[in-house]
Amino acid sequence: MERRRRVERLVALTRYLVEHPCQLVSLSSFGEELGAAKSSLSEDIALIKRMLDKEEEGWIETIAGAAGGVRYLPDLRGKAARALVESLAEELSRPARFLPGGFIYLTDIIFTPAIMEGVGKIFAGRFRPLGPEWVVTVETKGIPVALFTARALGVPAVIIRHESRVTEGPAVSINYLSGSTRRIQTMSLPRRALPAGAKVVVVDDFMRAGGTARGMHELMAEFGATVLGTGVLVATREPEKKLVPDYFSLLVLEEVKERGPELRVRPAIWLGGE
Amino acid sequence: MERRRRVERLVALTRYLVEHPCQLVSLSSFGEELGAAKSSLSEDIALIKRMLDKEEEGWIETIAGAAGGVRYLPDLRGKAARALVESLAEELSRPARFLPGGFIYLTDIIFTPAIMEGVGKIFAGRFRPLGPEWVVTVETKGIPVALFTARALGVPAVIIRHESRVTEGPAVSINYLSGSTRRIQTMSLPRRALPAGAKVVVVDDFMRAGGTARGMHELMAEFGATVLGTGVLVATREPEKKLVPDYFSLLVLEEVKERGPELRVRPAIWLGGE
Repeated sequence: MERRRRVERLVALTRYLVEHPCQLVSLSSFGEELGAAKSSLSEDIALIKRMLDKEEEGWIETIAGAAGGVRYLPDLRGKAARALVESLAEELSRPARFLPGGFIYLTDIIFTPAIMEGVGKIFAGRFRPLGPEWVVTVETKGIPVALFTARALGVPAVIIRHESRVTEGPAVSINYLSGSTRRIQTMSLPRRALPAGAKVVVVDDFMRAGGTARGMHELMAEFGATVLGTGVLVATREPEKKLVPDYFSLLVLEEVKERGPELRVRPAIWLGGE
Repeated sequence: MERRRRVERLVALTRYLVEHPCQLVSLSSFGEELGAAKSSLSEDIALIKRMLDKEEEGWIETIAGAAGGVRYLPDLRGKAARALVESLAEELSRPARFLPGGFIYLTDIIFTPAIMEGVGKIFAGRFRPLGPEWVVTVETKGIPVALFTARALGVPAVIIRHESRVTEGPAVSINYLSGSTRRIQTMSLPRRALPAGAKVVVVDDFMRAGGTARGMHELMAEFGATVLGTGVLVATREPEKKLVPDYFSLLVLEEVKERGPELRVRPAIWLGGE
Protein backbone atom coordinates (compact mmCIF):
# COMPACT_ATOMS: atom_id res chain seq x y z
CA MET A 1 0.00 0.00 0.00
CA GLU A 2 1.16 3.52 -0.71
CA ARG A 3 2.49 5.39 2.28
CA ARG A 4 0.25 8.21 3.34
CA ARG A 5 0.97 11.50 4.99
CA ARG A 6 -0.07 11.89 8.60
CA VAL A 7 -2.98 14.22 7.84
CA GLU A 8 -4.35 11.66 5.41
CA ARG A 9 -3.95 8.82 7.87
CA LEU A 10 -5.81 10.77 10.55
CA VAL A 11 -8.75 11.39 8.24
CA ALA A 12 -8.84 7.73 7.11
CA LEU A 13 -8.58 6.39 10.67
CA THR A 14 -11.19 8.75 12.12
CA ARG A 15 -13.60 8.03 9.31
CA TYR A 16 -13.24 4.27 9.60
CA LEU A 17 -13.60 4.17 13.38
CA VAL A 18 -16.65 6.46 13.53
CA GLU A 19 -18.28 4.72 10.55
CA HIS A 20 -17.94 1.29 12.21
CA PRO A 21 -19.02 1.74 15.83
CA CYS A 22 -17.81 -0.88 18.33
CA GLN A 23 -15.85 -2.81 15.71
CA LEU A 24 -12.45 -3.75 17.15
CA VAL A 25 -9.70 -3.17 14.56
CA SER A 26 -6.10 -4.23 15.10
CA LEU A 27 -3.37 -1.67 14.53
CA SER A 28 -1.62 -4.10 12.21
CA SER A 29 -4.59 -4.26 9.84
CA PHE A 30 -4.74 -0.46 9.81
CA GLY A 31 -0.99 -0.48 9.24
CA GLU A 32 -1.30 -2.67 6.15
CA GLU A 33 -4.14 -0.58 4.80
CA LEU A 34 -2.40 2.74 5.35
CA GLY A 35 1.21 1.72 4.82
CA ALA A 36 2.30 3.05 8.19
CA ALA A 37 4.42 1.76 11.06
CA LYS A 38 2.69 0.68 14.24
CA SER A 39 4.43 3.43 16.21
CA SER A 40 3.05 6.14 13.89
CA LEU A 41 -0.41 4.61 14.13
CA SER A 42 -0.23 4.53 17.92
CA GLU A 43 0.52 8.26 17.91
CA ASP A 44 -2.36 8.86 15.49
CA ILE A 45 -4.77 6.90 17.67
CA ALA A 46 -3.62 8.77 20.77
CA LEU A 47 -4.39 12.08 19.03
CA ILE A 48 -7.83 10.90 17.87
CA LYS A 49 -8.57 9.64 21.37
CA ARG A 50 -7.57 12.97 22.90
CA MET A 51 -9.70 14.92 20.43
CA LEU A 52 -12.77 12.72 20.91
CA ASP A 53 -12.52 12.95 24.68
CA LYS A 54 -13.17 16.69 24.32
CA GLU A 55 -16.42 16.02 22.51
CA GLU A 56 -19.47 14.56 24.17
CA GLU A 57 -20.27 11.93 21.56
CA GLY A 58 -18.38 8.69 21.65
CA TRP A 59 -14.85 7.79 22.65
CA ILE A 60 -11.97 5.60 21.59
CA GLU A 61 -11.14 2.43 23.48
CA THR A 62 -7.77 0.77 23.01
CA ILE A 63 -7.36 -2.83 24.06
CA ALA A 64 -3.84 -4.13 24.59
CA GLY A 65 -2.52 -7.58 23.73
CA ALA A 66 -2.52 -9.94 20.78
CA ALA A 67 -6.31 -9.92 20.40
CA GLY A 68 -6.41 -6.19 21.04
CA GLY A 69 -6.95 -3.17 18.90
CA VAL A 70 -8.92 0.01 18.83
CA ARG A 71 -12.59 0.82 18.53
CA TYR A 72 -15.04 3.70 18.63
CA LEU A 73 -17.79 3.50 21.26
CA PRO A 74 -20.66 5.92 20.55
CA ASP A 75 -22.47 7.65 23.35
CA LEU A 76 -23.94 11.06 24.08
CA ARG A 77 -23.30 12.82 27.36
CA GLY A 78 -23.14 16.14 29.16
CA LYS A 79 -24.38 19.17 27.25
CA ALA A 80 -24.99 17.22 24.03
CA ALA A 81 -27.30 14.75 25.80
CA ARG A 82 -29.05 17.54 27.66
CA ALA A 83 -29.64 19.51 24.45
CA LEU A 84 -31.24 16.50 22.75
CA VAL A 85 -33.47 15.60 25.70
CA GLU A 86 -34.53 19.23 26.25
CA SER A 87 -35.43 19.71 22.59
CA LEU A 88 -37.46 16.49 22.71
CA ALA A 89 -39.25 17.66 25.86
CA GLU A 90 -40.17 20.91 24.14
CA GLU A 91 -41.33 19.20 20.95
CA LEU A 92 -43.40 16.61 22.83
CA SER A 93 -45.12 19.27 24.93
CA ARG A 94 -46.79 20.79 21.85
CA PRO A 95 -50.59 20.61 22.21
CA ALA A 96 -50.96 19.05 18.73
CA ARG A 97 -49.32 15.92 20.15
CA PHE A 98 -52.13 15.33 22.61
CA LEU A 99 -53.90 12.00 22.01
CA PRO A 100 -57.06 10.80 23.74
CA GLY A 101 -56.52 8.53 26.74
CA GLY A 102 -53.45 10.22 28.13
CA PHE A 103 -51.04 9.49 25.32
CA ILE A 104 -48.78 11.58 23.12
CA TYR A 105 -48.15 11.26 19.41
CA LEU A 106 -44.60 9.92 19.25
CA THR A 107 -44.63 8.11 15.92
CA ASP A 108 -42.89 10.77 13.81
CA ILE A 109 -40.14 11.22 16.44
CA ILE A 110 -39.68 7.48 16.88
CA PHE A 111 -39.13 6.91 13.15
CA THR A 112 -36.73 9.80 12.55
CA PRO A 113 -33.27 8.20 12.59
CA ALA A 114 -31.38 11.45 13.23
CA ILE A 115 -33.25 11.76 16.56
CA MET A 116 -33.32 8.10 17.54
CA GLU A 117 -29.62 7.68 16.90
CA GLY A 118 -28.98 10.21 19.68
CA VAL A 119 -31.47 8.48 21.96
CA GLY A 120 -29.77 5.14 21.29
CA LYS A 121 -26.38 6.67 22.15
CA ILE A 122 -27.65 7.94 25.50
CA PHE A 123 -29.03 4.49 26.35
CA ALA A 124 -25.80 2.86 25.16
CA GLY A 125 -23.69 5.08 27.39
CA ARG A 126 -25.87 4.13 30.33
CA PHE A 127 -26.01 0.38 29.66
CA ARG A 128 -22.54 -0.33 28.22
CA PRO A 129 -20.80 -0.78 31.62
CA LEU A 130 -23.28 -3.60 32.38
CA GLY A 131 -22.12 -5.61 29.36
CA PRO A 132 -25.37 -6.34 27.48
CA GLU A 133 -25.21 -8.81 24.58
CA TRP A 134 -28.69 -8.12 23.18
CA VAL A 135 -31.23 -5.30 23.20
CA VAL A 136 -34.81 -6.57 23.54
CA THR A 137 -38.08 -4.81 22.75
CA VAL A 138 -41.61 -5.64 21.62
CA GLU A 139 -42.99 -4.54 18.25
CA THR A 140 -43.71 -1.92 16.89
CA LYS A 141 -42.74 1.45 18.30
CA GLY A 142 -40.02 0.06 20.53
CA ILE A 143 -38.10 -1.13 17.47
CA PRO A 144 -36.25 2.10 16.61
CA VAL A 145 -35.23 2.58 20.25
CA ALA A 146 -33.92 -1.00 20.28
CA LEU A 147 -32.14 -0.78 16.91
CA PHE A 148 -30.30 2.45 17.62
CA THR A 149 -29.37 1.38 21.15
CA ALA A 150 -28.11 -1.91 19.69
CA ARG A 151 -26.18 0.00 17.00
CA ALA A 152 -24.40 2.13 19.59
CA LEU A 153 -23.66 -0.94 21.75
CA GLY A 154 -22.49 -3.03 18.80
CA VAL A 155 -24.92 -5.87 19.55
CA PRO A 156 -28.03 -7.30 17.81
CA ALA A 157 -31.61 -6.45 18.72
CA VAL A 158 -34.28 -9.04 19.45
CA ILE A 159 -37.86 -8.11 18.65
CA ILE A 160 -40.72 -9.79 20.49
CA ARG A 161 -43.80 -10.20 18.29
CA HIS A 162 -47.47 -10.12 19.20
CA GLU A 163 -48.21 -13.33 17.32
CA SER A 164 -46.01 -16.34 16.97
CA ARG A 165 -45.07 -17.14 13.38
CA VAL A 166 -45.55 -20.79 12.54
CA THR A 167 -42.64 -20.52 10.15
CA GLU A 168 -40.08 -19.62 12.79
CA GLY A 169 -40.19 -22.83 14.81
CA PRO A 170 -41.00 -23.41 18.50
CA ALA A 171 -41.80 -20.21 20.38
CA VAL A 172 -42.47 -19.13 23.95
CA SER A 173 -45.59 -16.98 24.46
CA ILE A 174 -46.89 -15.13 27.49
CA ASN A 175 -49.94 -12.99 28.13
CA TYR A 176 -49.71 -9.54 29.64
CA LEU A 177 -51.91 -6.53 30.35
CA SER A 178 -50.98 -3.66 28.07
CA GLY A 179 -51.70 -0.20 29.42
CA SER A 180 -51.91 1.33 25.96
CA THR A 181 -54.57 -1.04 24.61
CA ARG A 182 -56.05 -1.78 28.04
CA ARG A 183 -56.48 -5.42 27.15
CA ILE A 184 -54.74 -8.73 27.52
CA GLN A 185 -52.16 -9.14 24.79
CA THR A 186 -49.76 -11.87 23.81
CA MET A 187 -46.03 -11.58 23.31
CA SER A 188 -44.10 -14.32 21.63
CA LEU A 189 -40.48 -15.07 20.79
CA PRO A 190 -39.05 -18.01 18.83
CA ARG A 191 -36.71 -20.23 20.84
CA ARG A 192 -33.96 -19.72 18.29
CA ALA A 193 -34.02 -15.93 18.79
CA LEU A 194 -32.01 -15.94 22.01
CA PRO A 195 -29.52 -18.42 23.53
CA ALA A 196 -29.94 -19.54 27.15
CA GLY A 197 -28.15 -17.33 29.66
CA ALA A 198 -28.14 -14.22 27.45
CA LYS A 199 -27.48 -10.86 29.09
CA VAL A 200 -30.03 -8.36 27.79
CA VAL A 201 -31.36 -4.86 28.26
CA VAL A 202 -35.04 -4.19 27.66
CA VAL A 203 -36.17 -0.95 25.99
CA ASP A 204 -39.44 0.61 24.83
CA ASP A 205 -40.80 3.94 23.66
CA PHE A 206 -43.40 4.57 26.37
CA MET A 207 -44.18 3.34 29.86
CA ARG A 208 -47.24 4.02 31.96
CA ALA A 209 -47.77 1.29 34.57
CA GLY A 210 -45.01 -0.90 33.18
CA GLY A 211 -47.16 -3.90 32.19
CA THR A 212 -45.43 -4.33 28.85
CA ALA A 213 -41.97 -4.01 30.40
CA ARG A 214 -42.91 -6.54 33.08
CA GLY A 215 -44.15 -8.87 30.35
CA MET A 216 -40.76 -8.61 28.64
CA HIS A 217 -38.99 -9.35 31.94
CA GLU A 218 -41.17 -12.43 32.41
CA LEU A 219 -40.52 -13.63 28.88
CA MET A 220 -36.78 -13.14 29.39
CA ALA A 221 -36.99 -15.27 32.54
CA GLU A 222 -38.52 -18.05 30.40
CA PHE A 223 -35.43 -17.86 28.19
CA GLY A 224 -33.08 -17.98 31.17
CA ALA A 225 -31.87 -14.51 30.21
CA THR A 226 -30.59 -11.92 32.68
CA VAL A 227 -32.18 -8.48 32.33
CA LEU A 228 -29.42 -5.97 33.15
CA GLY A 229 -31.55 -2.87 32.76
CA THR A 230 -34.73 -1.32 31.40
CA GLY A 231 -34.87 1.90 29.39
CA VAL A 232 -37.80 3.90 28.01
CA LEU A 233 -37.97 7.10 26.01
CA VAL A 234 -40.98 8.52 27.88
CA ALA A 235 -42.44 7.40 31.22
CA THR A 236 -45.56 8.92 32.77
CA ARG A 237 -45.18 10.42 36.23
CA GLU A 238 -48.32 8.61 37.40
CA PRO A 239 -48.44 5.91 38.60
CA GLU A 240 -45.15 6.60 40.30
CA LYS A 241 -44.67 2.95 41.22
CA LYS A 242 -44.17 0.92 38.05
CA LEU A 243 -44.52 -2.84 37.63
CA VAL A 244 -40.77 -3.18 36.97
CA PRO A 245 -38.43 -2.60 39.91
CA ASP A 246 -36.02 -0.19 38.26
CA TYR A 247 -35.94 1.66 34.98
CA PHE A 248 -34.23 4.50 33.20
CA SER A 249 -36.26 7.07 31.26
CA LEU A 250 -35.18 10.05 29.19
CA LEU A 251 -38.42 11.98 29.55
CA VAL A 252 -41.26 12.22 32.03
CA LEU A 253 -44.83 12.91 30.94
CA GLU A 254 -45.99 15.13 33.78
CA GLU A 255 -49.66 15.62 33.20
CA VAL A 256 -52.29 15.21 30.57
CA LYS A 257 -55.60 17.03 30.93
CA GLU A 258 -58.16 15.74 28.48
CA ARG A 259 -59.91 19.11 28.54
CA GLY A 260 -57.34 21.60 27.61
CA PRO A 261 -55.45 19.81 26.19
CA GLU A 262 -52.25 20.35 28.08
CA LEU A 263 -49.12 18.23 28.03
CA ARG A 264 -45.97 18.79 29.93
CA VAL A 265 -42.99 16.63 29.12
CA ARG A 266 -39.80 17.28 31.03
CA PRO A 267 -36.34 15.72 31.04
CA ALA A 268 -36.12 12.91 33.56
CA ILE A 269 -34.44 13.75 36.85
CA TRP A 270 -31.19 11.90 36.11
CA LEU A 271 -30.08 14.71 33.82
CA GLY A 272 -29.91 17.07 36.77
CA GLY A 273 -28.50 14.56 39.21
CA GLU A 274 -25.68 13.07 37.25
CA MET B 1 -12.51 29.19 20.88
CA GLU B 2 -8.93 28.06 21.12
CA ARG B 3 -7.12 27.76 17.83
CA ARG B 4 -6.38 24.18 16.92
CA ARG B 5 -3.59 22.61 14.92
CA ARG B 6 -4.46 21.30 11.50
CA VAL B 7 -4.23 17.64 12.52
CA GLU B 8 -6.68 18.29 15.32
CA ARG B 9 -9.07 20.16 13.05
CA LEU B 10 -9.05 17.28 10.57
CA VAL B 11 -9.94 14.75 13.24
CA ALA B 12 -12.70 16.99 14.65
CA LEU B 13 -14.18 17.73 11.21
CA THR B 14 -14.07 14.13 10.01
CA ARG B 15 -15.64 12.86 13.21
CA TYR B 16 -18.43 15.42 13.14
CA LEU B 17 -19.32 14.90 9.49
CA VAL B 18 -19.34 11.08 9.64
CA GLU B 19 -21.21 11.08 12.96
CA HIS B 20 -23.97 13.30 11.55
CA PRO B 21 -24.83 11.90 8.12
CA CYS B 22 -26.60 14.24 5.67
CA GLN B 23 -26.53 17.18 8.07
CA LEU B 24 -25.50 20.32 6.21
CA VAL B 25 -23.02 22.36 8.29
CA SER B 26 -21.81 25.80 7.27
CA LEU B 27 -18.08 26.47 7.20
CA SER B 28 -18.60 29.49 9.42
CA SER B 29 -20.13 27.41 12.21
CA PHE B 30 -17.18 25.00 11.98
CA GLY B 31 -14.90 28.03 11.97
CA GLU B 32 -16.34 29.35 15.23
CA GLU B 33 -16.16 25.95 16.84
CA LEU B 34 -12.58 25.26 15.78
CA GLY B 35 -11.16 28.77 15.82
CA ALA B 36 -9.99 28.55 12.22
CA ALA B 37 -10.21 30.81 9.17
CA LYS B 38 -12.60 29.86 6.39
CA SER B 39 -9.71 29.41 3.96
CA SER B 40 -8.00 26.86 6.25
CA LEU B 41 -11.28 25.02 6.67
CA SER B 42 -11.83 24.92 2.91
CA GLU B 43 -8.45 23.26 2.52
CA ASP B 44 -9.29 20.80 5.31
CA ILE B 45 -12.61 19.91 3.70
CA ALA B 46 -10.93 19.44 0.32
CA LEU B 47 -8.49 16.97 1.88
CA ILE B 48 -11.27 15.05 3.65
CA LYS B 49 -13.26 14.95 0.42
CA ARG B 50 -10.28 13.59 -1.51
CA MET B 51 -9.60 10.93 1.11
CA LEU B 52 -13.22 9.78 1.31
CA ASP B 53 -13.49 9.56 -2.47
CA LYS B 54 -10.85 6.81 -2.31
CA GLU B 55 -13.03 4.77 0.03
CA GLU B 56 -16.25 3.11 -1.01
CA GLU B 57 -18.41 4.27 1.87
CA GLY B 58 -19.88 7.72 1.75
CA TRP B 59 -18.65 10.99 0.28
CA ILE B 60 -18.51 14.68 1.05
CA GLU B 61 -20.83 17.10 -0.71
CA THR B 62 -20.07 20.81 -0.64
CA ILE B 63 -22.84 23.24 -1.46
CA ALA B 64 -21.86 26.78 -2.42
CA GLY B 65 -23.69 29.99 -1.53
CA ALA B 66 -25.08 31.66 1.57
CA ALA B 67 -27.26 28.68 2.54
CA GLY B 68 -24.46 26.29 1.63
CA GLY B 69 -22.06 24.18 3.59
CA VAL B 70 -20.70 20.71 3.72
CA ARG B 71 -22.18 17.32 4.51
CA TYR B 72 -21.36 13.64 4.58
CA LEU B 73 -23.56 11.37 2.44
CA PRO B 74 -23.24 7.69 3.40
CA ASP B 75 -23.36 4.99 0.79
CA LEU B 76 -21.67 1.69 0.02
CA ARG B 77 -20.41 0.90 -3.44
CA GLY B 78 -17.96 -1.14 -5.48
CA LYS B 79 -16.02 -3.83 -3.65
CA ALA B 80 -17.40 -2.86 -0.24
CA ALA B 81 -21.00 -3.33 -1.43
CA ARG B 82 -20.13 -6.55 -3.22
CA ALA B 83 -18.42 -7.97 -0.11
CA LEU B 84 -21.48 -7.28 2.05
CA VAL B 85 -23.95 -8.73 -0.44
CA GLU B 86 -21.81 -11.81 -1.09
CA SER B 87 -21.38 -12.52 2.61
CA LEU B 88 -25.14 -12.18 3.06
CA ALA B 89 -25.77 -14.56 0.16
CA GLU B 90 -23.48 -17.13 1.74
CA GLU B 91 -25.01 -16.76 5.19
CA LEU B 92 -28.58 -16.96 3.87
CA SER B 93 -27.83 -20.10 1.86
CA ARG B 94 -27.15 -22.10 5.05
CA PRO B 95 -29.59 -25.03 5.31
CA ALA B 96 -30.50 -24.11 8.91
CA ARG B 97 -32.22 -21.01 7.49
CA PHE B 98 -34.74 -23.06 5.56
CA LEU B 99 -38.31 -22.39 6.71
CA PRO B 100 -41.42 -24.31 5.59
CA GLY B 101 -43.37 -22.74 2.73
CA GLY B 102 -40.44 -21.45 0.74
CA PHE B 103 -39.13 -18.87 3.19
CA ILE B 104 -35.80 -18.19 4.82
CA TYR B 105 -35.09 -17.21 8.41
CA LEU B 106 -34.02 -13.57 8.10
CA THR B 107 -34.96 -12.24 11.53
CA ASP B 108 -31.51 -12.31 13.12
CA ILE B 109 -29.93 -10.62 10.08
CA ILE B 110 -32.67 -8.00 9.87
CA PHE B 111 -32.22 -6.95 13.49
CA THR B 112 -28.41 -6.75 13.48
CA PRO B 113 -27.65 -3.04 13.02
CA ALA B 114 -24.06 -3.57 11.84
CA ILE B 115 -25.45 -5.49 8.83
CA MET B 116 -28.53 -3.41 8.15
CA GLU B 117 -26.57 -0.18 8.25
CA GLY B 118 -24.63 -1.41 5.23
CA VAL B 119 -27.83 -2.52 3.50
CA GLY B 120 -29.36 0.90 4.15
CA LYS B 121 -26.28 2.58 2.65
CA ILE B 122 -26.55 0.55 -0.55
CA PHE B 123 -30.23 1.48 -0.89
CA ALA B 124 -29.43 5.12 -0.10
CA GLY B 125 -26.77 5.26 -2.80
CA ARG B 126 -29.27 3.88 -5.27
CA PHE B 127 -32.22 6.10 -4.32
CA ARG B 128 -30.49 9.38 -3.37
CA PRO B 129 -30.36 10.78 -6.95
CA LEU B 130 -34.17 10.47 -7.11
CA GLY B 131 -34.61 12.84 -4.16
CA PRO B 132 -36.81 10.86 -1.75
CA GLU B 133 -38.21 12.71 1.28
CA TRP B 134 -39.51 9.65 3.14
CA VAL B 135 -38.78 5.92 3.30
CA VAL B 136 -41.95 3.84 3.62
CA THR B 137 -42.38 0.24 4.78
CA VAL B 138 -44.95 -1.96 6.50
CA GLU B 139 -44.37 -3.46 9.95
CA THR B 140 -42.51 -5.49 11.22
CA LYS B 141 -39.49 -6.89 9.42
CA GLY B 142 -39.33 -4.07 6.88
CA ILE B 143 -38.65 -1.59 9.70
CA PRO B 144 -34.86 -2.01 10.01
CA VAL B 145 -34.46 -1.79 6.22
CA ALA B 146 -36.51 1.43 6.27
CA LEU B 147 -34.77 2.95 9.30
CA PHE B 148 -31.23 2.39 8.06
CA THR B 149 -32.08 3.50 4.52
CA ALA B 150 -33.69 6.61 6.01
CA ARG B 151 -30.64 7.20 8.21
CA ALA B 152 -28.30 7.10 5.22
CA LEU B 153 -30.62 9.37 3.21
CA GLY B 154 -31.12 11.80 6.09
CA VAL B 155 -34.93 11.55 5.95
CA PRO B 156 -37.61 10.10 8.26
CA ALA B 157 -39.20 6.67 7.85
CA VAL B 158 -42.95 6.07 7.74
CA ILE B 159 -44.20 2.74 9.04
CA ILE B 160 -47.51 1.35 7.79
CA ARG B 161 -49.32 -0.65 10.49
CA HIS B 162 -51.56 -3.69 10.16
CA GLU B 163 -54.25 -2.18 12.39
CA SER B 164 -55.28 1.42 12.62
CA ARG B 165 -54.79 2.92 16.07
CA VAL B 166 -57.82 4.83 17.27
CA THR B 167 -55.49 7.13 19.13
CA GLU B 168 -53.69 8.42 16.07
CA GLY B 169 -56.61 10.12 14.34
CA PRO B 170 -58.11 9.54 10.87
CA ALA B 171 -56.35 6.82 8.90
CA VAL B 172 -56.47 5.35 5.40
CA SER B 173 -56.69 1.57 5.22
CA ILE B 174 -56.49 -0.84 2.30
CA ASN B 175 -56.69 -4.60 1.98
CA TYR B 176 -54.06 -6.64 0.17
CA LEU B 177 -53.09 -10.24 -0.40
CA SER B 178 -49.93 -11.08 1.48
CA GLY B 179 -47.80 -13.85 -0.01
CA SER B 180 -46.18 -14.66 3.32
CA THR B 181 -49.40 -15.22 5.24
CA ARG B 182 -51.44 -16.23 2.16
CA ARG B 183 -54.43 -14.30 3.39
CA ILE B 184 -56.07 -10.93 3.00
CA GLN B 185 -54.44 -8.43 5.32
CA THR B 186 -55.04 -4.79 6.12
CA MET B 187 -52.53 -1.99 5.98
CA SER B 188 -53.27 1.33 7.56
CA LEU B 189 -51.60 4.71 7.87
CA PRO B 190 -52.76 7.79 9.81
CA ARG B 191 -53.46 10.84 7.64
CA ARG B 192 -51.00 12.90 9.68
CA ALA B 193 -48.14 10.50 8.92
CA LEU B 194 -47.46 11.84 5.42
CA PRO B 195 -48.18 15.20 3.74
CA ALA B 196 -49.89 15.25 0.33
CA GLY B 197 -47.48 15.16 -2.60
CA ALA B 198 -44.69 13.46 -0.67
CA LYS B 199 -41.89 11.80 -2.65
CA VAL B 200 -41.21 8.38 -1.18
CA VAL B 201 -39.32 5.16 -1.70
CA VAL B 202 -40.86 1.89 -0.59
CA VAL B 203 -38.70 -0.84 0.99
CA ASP B 204 -39.23 -4.28 2.52
CA ASP B 205 -37.21 -7.29 3.64
CA PHE B 206 -38.66 -9.94 1.33
CA MET B 207 -40.64 -10.08 -1.90
CA ARG B 208 -42.24 -13.08 -3.52
CA ALA B 209 -45.14 -12.05 -5.80
CA GLY B 210 -45.01 -8.41 -4.71
CA GLY B 211 -48.50 -8.23 -3.16
CA THR B 212 -47.30 -6.34 -0.11
CA ALA B 213 -45.25 -3.92 -2.21
CA ARG B 214 -48.23 -3.33 -4.50
CA GLY B 215 -50.37 -2.69 -1.42
CA MET B 216 -47.89 -0.04 -0.29
CA HIS B 217 -47.94 1.55 -3.76
CA GLU B 218 -51.75 1.66 -3.64
CA LEU B 219 -51.75 3.18 -0.18
CA MET B 220 -49.23 5.80 -1.31
CA ALA B 221 -51.54 6.69 -4.22
CA GLU B 222 -54.30 7.34 -1.65
CA PHE B 223 -51.98 9.83 0.04
CA GLY B 224 -51.16 11.54 -3.27
CA ALA B 225 -47.54 10.46 -2.76
CA THR B 226 -45.13 9.71 -5.61
CA VAL B 227 -43.29 6.39 -5.30
CA LEU B 228 -39.81 6.99 -6.73
CA GLY B 229 -38.55 3.45 -6.27
CA THR B 230 -38.99 0.10 -4.53
CA GLY B 231 -36.21 -1.81 -2.79
CA VAL B 232 -36.13 -5.23 -1.12
CA LEU B 233 -33.39 -7.14 0.62
CA VAL B 234 -34.34 -10.54 -0.85
CA ALA B 235 -36.62 -11.28 -3.82
CA THR B 236 -37.52 -14.78 -4.98
CA ARG B 237 -36.64 -15.65 -8.58
CA GLU B 238 -40.10 -17.15 -9.09
CA PRO B 239 -42.51 -15.69 -10.04
CA GLU B 240 -40.28 -13.62 -12.28
CA LYS B 241 -43.02 -11.12 -12.98
CA LYS B 242 -43.85 -9.24 -9.77
CA LEU B 243 -46.96 -7.21 -9.01
CA VAL B 244 -44.93 -3.98 -8.93
CA PRO B 245 -43.52 -2.69 -12.23
CA ASP B 246 -39.94 -2.13 -11.17
CA TYR B 247 -37.90 -2.94 -8.09
CA PHE B 248 -34.36 -3.18 -6.83
CA SER B 249 -33.22 -6.19 -4.80
CA LEU B 250 -29.90 -6.99 -3.17
CA LEU B 251 -30.35 -10.76 -3.17
CA VAL B 252 -32.23 -13.34 -5.20
CA LEU B 253 -33.63 -16.49 -3.60
CA GLU B 254 -33.02 -18.98 -6.38
CA GLU B 255 -34.72 -22.12 -5.29
CA VAL B 256 -36.20 -23.76 -2.28
CA LYS B 257 -36.81 -27.48 -2.26
CA GLU B 258 -38.96 -28.51 0.64
CA ARG B 259 -37.36 -31.95 0.59
CA GLY B 260 -33.73 -31.35 0.96
CA PRO B 261 -33.77 -28.68 2.19
CA GLU B 262 -31.72 -26.63 -0.19
CA LEU B 263 -31.51 -22.88 -0.47
CA ARG B 264 -29.51 -20.87 -2.86
CA VAL B 265 -29.32 -17.14 -2.38
CA ARG B 266 -27.23 -15.17 -4.82
CA PRO B 267 -26.39 -11.49 -5.24
CA ALA B 268 -28.89 -9.81 -7.56
CA ILE B 269 -27.76 -9.27 -11.12
CA TRP B 270 -27.13 -5.53 -10.76
CA LEU B 271 -23.92 -6.15 -8.88
CA GLY B 272 -22.40 -7.70 -11.94
CA GLY B 273 -23.89 -5.30 -14.43
CA GLU B 274 -23.12 -1.97 -12.85
